[in-house]
Amino acid sequence: MKLLNETISSIEKIDYRLGKETQRRLDNLTKPQGSLGRLEELAKHIVEITRVKNPMLVHKVIFTVAGDHGVVEEGVSAFPKEVTPQMVYNFLNGGAGINVLARHVGARVVVIDAGVASDLIPAPHLIIKKVGYGTKNMAKGPAMTREEAVKSLEAGIEVFEAEFKKGINIAGTGDMGIGNTTPSSAITAVITGNPVEEVTGRGTGISDKTLSHKIEVIKRAIALNKPDPKDGIDALSKVGGFELGALAGVIIASASKKVPVVIDGFISGAAALIAYTVEPKVRDYMIAAHCSVERGHGIALGFLGLKPILDLEMRLGEGTGAALAMGIVDAGVKILNEMATFESAGISEKNK
Amino acid sequence: MKLLNETISSIEKIDYRLGKETQRRLDNLTKPQGSLGRLEELAKHIVEITRVKNPMLVHKVIFTVAGDHGVVEEGVSAFPKEVTPQMVYNFLNGGAGINVLARHVGARVVVIDAGVASDLIPAPHLIIKKVGYGTKNMAKGPAMTREEAVKSLEAGIEVFEAEFKKGINIAGTGDMGIGNTTPSSAITAVITGNPVEEVTGRGTGISDKTLSHKIEVIKRAIALNKPDPKDGIDALSKVGGFELGALAGVIIASASKKVPVVIDGFISGAAALIAYTVEPKVRDYMIAAHCSVERGHGIALGFLGLKPILDLEMRLGEGTGAALAMGIVDAGVKILNEMATFESAGISEKNK
Repeated sequence: MKLLNETISSIEKIDYRLGKETQRRLDNLTKPQGSLGRLEELAKHIVEITRVKNPMLVHKVIFTVAGDHGVVEEGVSAFPKEVTPQMVYNFLNGGAGINVLARHVGARVVVIDAGVASDLIPAPHLIIKKVGYGTKNMAKGPAMTREEAVKSLEAGIEVFEAEFKKGINIAGTGDMGIGNTTPSSAITAVITGNPVEEVTGRGTGISDKTLSHKIEVIKRAIALNKPDPKDGIDALSKVGGFELGALAGVIIASASKKVPVVIDGFISGAAALIAYTVEPKVRDYMIAAHCSVERGHGIALGFLGLKPILDLEMRLGEGTGAALAMGIVDAGVKILNEMATFESAGISEKNK
Repeated sequence: MKLLNETISSIEKIDYRLGKETQRRLDNLTKPQGSLGRLEELAKHIVEITRVKNPMLVHKVIFTVAGDHGVVEEGVSAFPKEVTPQMVYNFLNGGAGINVLARHVGARVVVIDAGVASDLIPAPHLIIKKVGYGTKNMAKGPAMTREEAVKSLEAGIEVFEAEFKKGINIAGTGDMGIGNTTPSSAITAVITGNPVEEVTGRGTGISDKTLSHKIEVIKRAIALNKPDPKDGIDALSKVGGFELGALAGVIIASASKKVPVVIDGFISGAAALIAYTVEPKVRDYMIAAHCSVERGHGIALGFLGLKPILDLEMRLGEGTGAALAMGIVDAGVKILNEMATFESAGISEKNK
């Protein structure tokens, strides 16, 4: 709890004054004012977060956190549980979607086991921060203890801080965990106060029948555990997951180090809700990568007041949306750093 | 006219059969089926266009075409006419928005003078294909002769074919021309059949009063010249521009060489309408980069049946949207080429 509290207490407000100065600089570049739309907004936001006038996003890091879920025994997912470790090995071998898209934008992928249900074979690029061997079935009791919830948050903070020493200019979140849209829907329903039906989708691709069952399981878990919507740690412990906690920790640590953090899709959105409930100041450090097809993601983003960069009908997770969006953020920052001004290029300004 | 006719007659249909085969390959990659949404669609589309099973978008080329417009004397633009050549020099010096974003995605920018109103200082990377020293004022008569319209289309074809010899895997369109939203709105109104008010926006940022005047000028030009909506060359000659014609030529040439062409924003959209009216088969070779803030762009895309990749509230032109979108298309193609299959990664498939 000490690490979590210290990290939270070191989070400062972002620098709006520097943002205004940045907009004036953007307005002097050789283009009609505001004509690069969200690229300009993103550049300004990165300056506000980093307090660096000409930030360079050299070190891009995606944190892809894996965990298993006891609730899978209720039959809520289209894929069997053994896919979680299999996909972790796929990440380590560079063959997954996140590997391809991270390479595409020049990001490195940090793979973390926060709670896979089996022991993974150690590998140089695998970080083991196992809080438990999968959560307990939340339909029968709390997914984890409050101590485990704090431990998962702190696992994310520890991983972030270790990577921060190697250099991070922008972070991204990603997830892997068969069944993890179920706790994510539960978290979204609890924290945003929306009905379970409206925040529960098909995950990896379940049938109508399984979807009805999934909704019923989530309702049962919430009724049984009574998570407190104002207490992110309570919600995490009762209907969350180890990777959700670790991702919330990554987000909190990112804010504490003045590093922009790109929030991937639905699972990462649930982690962002937890982080925000634990400490609202983290919100201003978040950048929403994309609008996922997964039902409920739009509601989470709306609750957080975040506007997604991309809408490409994606729903894979892993950090794939975060990686692609990082490329766009990087483009915005380059506009600020590399474009000529009207004066330097000798170009006539707008008619008065 | 011979070059144009030959180019048009060499355009083939895209290969839908190969697209279906590509979707089956995408479905075997280690992700839930369809979970990469539009990235998968784009990869499939690139295969259909190129007929290459594992296309590599190594050579990315943005064609940024400049031209001036006689109609500027009516007071329809926020910037003075001398900005057109000034911005061409900015492109050649690498300081414009398109230079930054093209570098970001690894594209080269080909700068073409199709009709700037002054003589430009020759430079190694400037291609002079001047059809005239700016168009005539379309509010007083046709913008150009029919011969000049054909010449501008063929200028685009010639430039594309010369660059194609150096290698092009994907092309993008871009524009520069003070006043060119005025002919673009006219073209969009004429070809899509929508009222001028609904397809005319603020361009580089004009006042309400100038916008009303701009709409009135466009209406006058259409009433006076009576462009034929079914004849793209007629519409181009009466209310178009030299850069619009050359861009339509680039699009036609791209289709004839089985090269995907990313259509930038509103001006490029008007050029795409001309190309489509001249030869409807070109449509399937087009990829819409983004949805511009400029009013009327959505209408042009709807008419062409194109769904934009990005919506970043941009309205700069130059090819900036095309460059950014090329990065996303490239990501889609890499997904197809680089991801592991369920079998190769030893991952369990979906529960039956």
